[in-house]
Amino acid sequence: MSKVSEPIRVGVLGARGKVGRAMCDAVEAAADLELVARIDKDDALDTLVATQAQVVIDFTHPDVVMDNLRFVVEHGIHAVVGTTGFDEDRLETLRGLLADAPQVGVLVAPNFAIGAVLSMRFAAAAARFYESVEVIELHHPHKADAPSGTAYRTAGLIAQARREAGVGESPDATTAELDGARGASVDGVRVHSVRLAGLIAHQEVLLGTEGETLTIRHDSMDRMSFAPGVLLGVREIAARPGLTVGLDPLLDL
Amino acid sequence: MSKVSEPIRVGVLGARGKVGRAMCDAVEAAADLELVARIDKDDALDTLVATQAQVVIDFTHPDVVMDNLRFVVEHGIHAVVGTTGFDEDRLETLRGLLADAPQVGVLVAPNFAIGAVLSMRFAAAAARFYESVEVIELHHPHKADAPSGTAYRTAGLIAQARREAGVGESPDATTAELDGARGASVDGVRVHSVRLAGLIAHQEVLLGTEGETLTIRHDSMDRMSFAPGVLLGVREIAARPGLTVGLDPLLDL
Amino acid sequence: MSKVSEPIRVGVLGARGKVGRAMCDAVEAAADLELVARIDKDDALDTLVATQAQVVIDFTHPDVVMDNLRFVVEHGIHAVVGTTGFDEDRLETLRGLLADAPQVGVLVAPNFAIGAVLSMRFAAAAARFYESVEVIELHHPHKADAPSGTAYRTAGLIAQARREAGVGESPDATTAELDGARGASVDGVRVHSVRLAGLIAHQEVLLGTEGETLTIRHDSMDRMSFAPGVLLGVREIAARPGLTVGLDPLLDL
Amino acid sequence: MSKVSEPIRVGVLGARGKVGRAMCDAVEAAADLELVARIDKDDALDTLVATQAQVVIDFTHPDVVMDNLRFVVEHGIHAVVGTTGFDEDRLETLRGLLADAPQVGVLVAPNFAIGAVLSMRFAAAAARFYESVEVIELHHPHKADAPSGTAYRTAGLIAQARREAGVGESPDATTAELDGARGASVDGVRVHSVRLAGLIAHQEVLLGTEGETLTIRHDSMDRMSFAPGVLLGVREIAARPGLTVGLDPLLDL
Repeated sequence: MSKVSEPIRVGVLGARGKVGRAMCDAVEAAADLELVARIDKDDALDTLVATQAQVVIDFTHPDVVMDNLRFVVEHGIHAVVGTTGFDEDRLETLRGLLADAPQVGVLVAPNFAIGAVLSMRFAAAAARFYESVEVIELHHPHKADAPSGTAYRTAGLIAQARREAGVGESPDATTAELDGARGASVDGVRVHSVRLAGLIAHQEVLLGTEGETLTIRHDSMDRMSFAPGVLLGVREIAARPGLTVGLDPLLDL
Repeated sequence: MSKVSEPIRVGVLGARGKVGRAMCDAVEAAADLELVARIDKDDALDTLVATQAQVVIDFTHPDVVMDNLRFVVEHGIHAVVGTTGFDEDRLETLRGLLADAPQVGVLVAPNFAIGAVLSMRFAAAAARFYESVEVIELHHPHKADAPSGTAYRTAGLIAQARREAGVGESPDATTAELDGARGASVDGVRVHSVRLAGLIAHQEVLLGTEGETLTIRHDSMDRMSFAPGVLLGVREIAARPGLTVGLDPLLDL
Repeated sequence: MSKVSEPIRVGVLGARGKVGRAMCDAVEAAADLELVARIDKDDALDTLVATQAQVVIDFTHPDVVMDNLRFVVEHGIHAVVGTTGFDEDRLETLRGLLADAPQVGVLVAPNFAIGAVLSMRFAAAAARFYESVEVIELHHPHKADAPSGTAYRTAGLIAQARREAGVGESPDATTAELDGARGASVDGVRVHSVRLAGLIAHQEVLLGTEGETLTIRHDSMDRMSFAPGVLLGVREIAARPGLTVGLDPLLDL
Repeated sequence: MSKVSEPIRVGVLGARGKVGRAMCDAVEAAADLELVARIDKDDALDTLVATQAQVVIDFTHPDVVMDNLRFVVEHGIHAVVGTTGFDEDRLETLRGLLADAPQVGVLVAPNFAIGAVLSMRFAAAAARFYESVEVIELHHPHKADAPSGTAYRTAGLIAQARREAGVGESPDATTAELDGARGASVDGVRVHSVRLAGLIAHQEVLLGTEGETLTIRHDSMDRMSFAPGVLLGVREIAARPGLTVGLDPLLDL
């Protein structure tokens, strides 16, 4: 990493939420970043201007995030956004805002865990070389949905890669199945969801062909696992004007 | 292991079948065993007497195994049996035969892979100390049934151990499930069946409680994985008159 | 679990330390236990008598633990002790104290993580059935010692079990080794220590023989992983007068 | 895969060796390939011309491979080569031969297992995003060298990727190490070599940063695991005139 004469000036929106506090800690711990503003719902966004923030991190709420982004884009501040609720309409609105501020960059990502993003990318890249592929995702037992959102996306990317390469479905001679044993089918890819006390968030993609298997496993031990991805975004977003969706483009694979 | 002055004299029934040939090889490779008879369907059982076999290994067919056992028990020869099809009726018949030959031992086991037997035993022993338990079994894609027979038995043993200890079902907050994602329920224990080219036969029992997990995994790489269990049976059966069902009692855990 | 008419009355010594606070939380969360006293270094032990504590949990310091135990034993209170520093001299002193209070039980254990204890037990039980065994332990990179204490003990128990069964060393044809590649030798058992950011405390025992392997893996995700073992001790110690060393006897395997 | 009007005509050199026989079987099992010549040391290379072979597979010996390649290149036949012993001199000679036959393609690869190649590639791509990385390779106990050649190359590629990104060494606070516990250092990357009966050839790359880990594991179950990589080479080499070293360029990642 090249020498940085001046640290990047960072503001955190949603600074008193659980994730926001973690982001403040992460920014303060990074030598090349300076935390200049902690903003929560009762605080004025003007503080960002007064403190000369260069990049904001937004983990707030779908109800307020668009107002936040309008403000920062208009004031020439870049943004790294983990708030949920970005459908195509919202992304289109965001592109409109950015058209008027061609030097500003905004990164919106559904998942900032670098390992989750790399896992998906590697699984998709490998999928066409293997006869078989299945996904096992494993989470704590308080999770309401099965499969996880990440597993859905992983299976979708795998299925797409295999279709594009003309690879058929994974072979399966099962004729006698106890209901549910073979998992759920997401776009033709089998996904198994384990729920176990003691676990946090884990996923394994298994790929196999005659005589060999390849396994790509991601283990997320705590909520801080997205911090390195957010900081990567903070460091890179100034060099990427316009809208960037997902962490992938920054990984430069 | 104590010194053995004389090797044990072993006959193999079903000696020209795939498993039988493997058993002959395994006996020949063992310094403390001597292969004295290879019997297949056109060969006379009298050869066992003529060659003074002390123990037979029977991997034949449900149609002939009872005749084989009648012969060897009557001639005072011990038997280690991997042939399938032993229901309670057959075991009862066998107990009757052995009642008239109190010095003869017969071992009938559905699974001679020591690792499979140990896995089940350990899983059952650990099950009551953990809030959650699930089973993942992974096999080649030519397998017709899901879950595997071993996974059924493992889940059954786990469920029984938990009931006896008064432990309830594993916690699970799933409210939105894509059909099959959470696997099959075997006696209240979730079982997931993966089918993947490149795999052979594998099983993982996952146990979890607050802050920790325990995983017991068995990998069977080839058909020879039952050989050490059969040879253990051959060495021990003379010291165990009567009927022994399953390899467990010999493992002395 | 049978119905408990009255909760067990528990006192925690070292109640303001990190571990002590966690223990207080765990006791309060358990329906069959009642936290009656939180004692730290400036508090009088008499409180235990005044609050009619039946069992104490002691995670204090080697300098004070013996005084604590003298007091509770003399007052007929059982103890579950995780404080370190118990050599044979101290255990002997403790046995002496208990000789005068035959109804009191004290449990001293170096490791209360049930999974760690089960792993060691299972590894030792399986060790004599396999040609090969190696241990991989994986921890966060702030750990000063390699291998971990648990890995030392695991390897020692494995080596002892193999010696008693007359099993020789694991086969190894290595003739060209880059220094350190084959790990450390603990009592003839190879142990490999991985240090990796993102990990907490994990251990894998790999056992293998022709055609099959058995893996016993323990993952400890946070400091709370010892709580279930301590609570097990609290519930069982009244039924075990005298000194009990290690959690094993309570697991009833 | 697009429709192939005519199967590719394939000759196998070293056809009676263990690997060569496996290659013949693999070619015969592929619908889009036709095995037209099986050549071993006493057979004339002219057969390749007579049978109009388009591609040869060469798993022979360092002593004869250069003569084989001279012949096939001169006769306009492409080659996929797994024979060992290609140093820079030999590759240079090969480039010279190919300069005179600009339409011919030759692929020389040290490792045709697609999973091994993908593992190395993914590990190198991910290495700069993680604080820590270590390699565990696990093999059968008859292996003479530790670490394996694949582990050496994997560690080398990881080290290079980290140097290029300016990432320092993995953190390690070990101050008390039993000799060998922390593995071997290959170019600054720790490598651990497990040797265990029942295993074949396996490798795990572990990458970790605060709160998350990524694991890339490759399991090779039998000698046939290189077949899909060789067949991929056979299908693609006609479209890649000149010398290609390693399977990587064909994977198009």
